[in-house]
Amino acid sequence: MTYRVSIFIELQEGVLDIQGKAVERSLAGMGHDALRSVKVGKYIQVWVETGSAEDARKEAERMCDDLLVNSVIEQFRIEVEGE
Amino acid sequence: MTYRVSIFIELQEGVLDIQGKAVERSLAGMGHDALRSVKVGKYIQVWVETGSAEDARKEAERMCDDLLVNSVIEQFRIEVEGE
Repeated sequence: MTYRVSIFIELQEGVLDIQGKAVERSLAGMGHDALRSVKVGKYIQVWVETGSAEDARKEAERMCDDLLVNSVIEQFRIEVEGE
Repeated sequence: MTYRVSIFIELQEGVLDIQGKAVERSLAGMGHDALRSVKVGKYIQVWVETGSAEDARKEAERMCDDLLVNSVIEQFRIEVEGE
């Protein structure tokens, strides 16, 4: 079965989010006074053909380790559709 | 109260996802045979101080319209923590 796996990647706490700061400043300049903070990350969806949702998650975790996530500065969370 | 709002931005169907294709090819080259497709998008978290979760959502929607989302080629989904 083909599973859709969503991977949410963000910078770890304590790592300066320059892109987030830039967006924050732009939005504040546009009058978004309710805004307190912004964090910019990546949203990667992968479709994998595996025997179970659990295997789909493991496969996605391997992709994160191999390529998608820089574990020195980033952290990630995975959601498998139908799990 | 300060609400954390997660915004998931992806390319609309039919728009060529060059970044996704590049990641797909790299992962396939690394032996990820279960992989069928990849889509790369943005994961933006904003913290907003509003009176209700509903207001937080509306505020985030305005930010998407004003700056975060290019509605010609992108689509988005919003999740408000505690809603």
